[in-house]
Amino acid sequence: MKINSSSEYFGEQLYLESGRILEGYTLAYESYGVLNKDKSNAIVVFHALTGSQHAAGKYEGDSKAGWWDPLIGDDKALDTQKYFVICVNVLGSCFGSSGPTSQTKKGATPLRLKFPVITISDMVNAQMSLFKRLGIAKAYAVIGGSLGGMQALCVGVEYPEFTDRVIMLASTSATSPWTISYNKLAMEGIIKDSRFKDGNYKKEDFEELPLNGFAIGRMAGHISFLSPDSMNKKFGRNYVETDGLYELFGRFQIERYMEYNGYNFAKRFDPLSYIYIIKAMNIFDASRNYDSLSDSLKNIKAKMTLISFRGDMLFMPSEMEIIRDTIKDLGRGEKVEYHCVDSSYGHDAFLVEYDKFDFYIKKAIE
Amino acid sequence: MKINSSSEYFGEQLYLESGRILEGYTLAYESYGVLNKDKSNAIVVFHALTGSQHAAGKYEGDSKAGWWDPLIGDDKALDTQKYFVICVNVLGSCFGSSGPTSQTKKGATPLRLKFPVITISDMVNAQMSLFKRLGIAKAYAVIGGSLGGMQALCVGVEYPEFTDRVIMLASTSATSPWTISYNKLAMEGIIKDSRFKDGNYKKEDFEELPLNGFAIGRMAGHISFLSPDSMNKKFGRNYVETDGLYELFGRFQIERYMEYNGYNFAKRFDPLSYIYIIKAMNIFDASRNYDSLSDSLKNIKAKMTLISFRGDMLFMPSEMEIIRDTIKDLGRGEKVEYHCVDSSYGHDAFLVEYDKFDFYIKKAIE
Repeated sequence: MKINSSSEYFGEQLYLESGRILEGYTLAYESYGVLNKDKSNAIVVFHALTGSQHAAGKYEGDSKAGWWDPLIGDDKALDTQKYFVICVNVLGSCFGSSGPTSQTKKGATPLRLKFPVITISDMVNAQMSLFKRLGIAKAYAVIGGSLGGMQALCVGVEYPEFTDRVIMLASTSATSPWTISYNKLAMEGIIKDSRFKDGNYKKEDFEELPLNGFAIGRMAGHISFLSPDSMNKKFGRNYVETDGLYELFGRFQIERYMEYNGYNFAKRFDPLSYIYIIKAMNIFDASRNYDSLSDSLKNIKAKMTLISFRGDMLFMPSEMEIIRDTIKDLGRGEKVEYHCVDSSYGHDAFLVEYDKFDFYIKKAIE
Repeated sequence: MKINSSSEYFGEQLYLESGRILEGYTLAYESYGVLNKDKSNAIVVFHALTGSQHAAGKYEGDSKAGWWDPLIGDDKALDTQKYFVICVNVLGSCFGSSGPTSQTKKGATPLRLKFPVITISDMVNAQMSLFKRLGIAKAYAVIGGSLGGMQALCVGVEYPEFTDRVIMLASTSATSPWTISYNKLAMEGIIKDSRFKDGNYKKEDFEELPLNGFAIGRMAGHISFLSPDSMNKKFGRNYVETDGLYELFGRFQIERYMEYNGYNFAKRFDPLSYIYIIKAMNIFDASRNYDSLSDSLKNIKAKMTLISFRGDMLFMPSEMEIIRDTIKDLGRGEKVEYHCVDSSYGHDAFLVEYDKFDFYIKKAIE
């Protein structure tokens, strides 16, 4: 399977939900498979908070493939022999699309903390300009997990003609205070770290010595991605070797896991992008511009496939069940399919236990 | 009800579980009620991680009473007309008992990061010296929640003749990796904050400007004390007014709650004490010096009363059920009573919803 990597610059203004305007913006994306003549075989994949457009395949020299590689490719659930699969780096992120540390208008300096607050609707809205430019008036399906699931739901509600199939995994119709509280640790960690310098840091400074507050915030994320059960299985109360200050205290395997993931992540992800994207996640509430969630979901014309994971501590099955129940209560039970996958991986399951849900995805797009 | 506040210095060496020795130590404590002639009416209350010996009553000018005031006093569950209730500040803490920032041997400078690692057994062991000095050979009951519950269980296993009644709330027989992971955020936040200076800070410096890493670590604690349900009820997705950097991002009520609690706590609690006590919690495993938990709990002679709380995300009901089941499997079903309280307060419930469990305590000591 060939990876097509590209990016498009949009010179026109983008009107944001906040009332502010982006003077121009770039969207970086990858695609796999071939867009057919009538441009009707596109499947849009939305990535999660720290994901990127690199959803599948390997670049030369890479040891790891894209983040949803087991699902995207020839003969896989999203079959690239049949479908043109496209994944766009979200606005605000740091992998080529415009964000706080990259250009918006060509030649301009990065806006940093002057970058406007972005919402899920803004992310989707920007992507729609790209699909339009590519000639994709209607996608065969849209799919995403976590923050990607929010984008998928947003398409269903705000662009009801854009697709007949919306697939949402491990997500919610409105981010809960529980999830906001985890995000808060990262937000506070980043903003209060003296090396953040109100956003005027040099990213290179963090490649060797990552921003501690960011690493700690990310560790909090890693707690929420797992679950008590999965931690028991994965780490138990095992000790590992240690040095430095920790020699005094001893170190548990779960602690080493958190350090490893926290600091490595803080070396490669941009802290400004992180706070802008978690803010977008926090703001997300599908009922925000409506009288009720029912009023919002009434707009959906697509068939919704909802997949939740039993041990998910970040976006709990009960949250996905609210979406199912609301659609059912609208008398549209035939337009929603819900599966709760029995997994002990917690929120991470949608990025790990493919064989437990790929058949639901296959079914949804067949 | 009169508060008796006191402290005792022990000049003798305290042999610690780690193999290290404390050259001397002080224990600060409060007591309520009168110790009877044969010294048989003492009820020992063990405090939690950030608690203190001030378990009940008010000092002149105080607006808030001690942390378990609704349970301790005349005619309350722990009736101070009948019982002599005593609560000792744990070793390692910062309210008068010896810890990393206070004296051990008289006249010595604080040991700071040279203070030895303390375990739950060490905490209990030190308190036993105090009870001995007070002439209390046997307590009428011991009781504690969370870290206090660990101490109560420890008494049951290691001092089986010391009491006939052990009451344990919202606790565990072995701290789970899930809880260790929350503690890790505080440990990492404190240690990596440049103002922590490897433990050589001046506490006064934090009274105005608290240690950010500590505040953030404490915020993580506050997540674990609540539950998704309690956050929904308490905060929902409400926004609050804001200023500064947050003006850009907007602030949710749950965020303000975390800031308020995190920073205020970091102003008044000692960060070194905090990392020593969470380490003691992390290390706790009642089966540690035994072949199995069953082998350990076999030592218990007291009647065990276990109280868990349905939404507790830190020490889950299932963990308390392990203790109950292990005792039952030993053929001692009559020696254990278990109650799971339906509360949406999460771990905090044992400090909040008194009227949902005080009768279990009354029953246990009658």
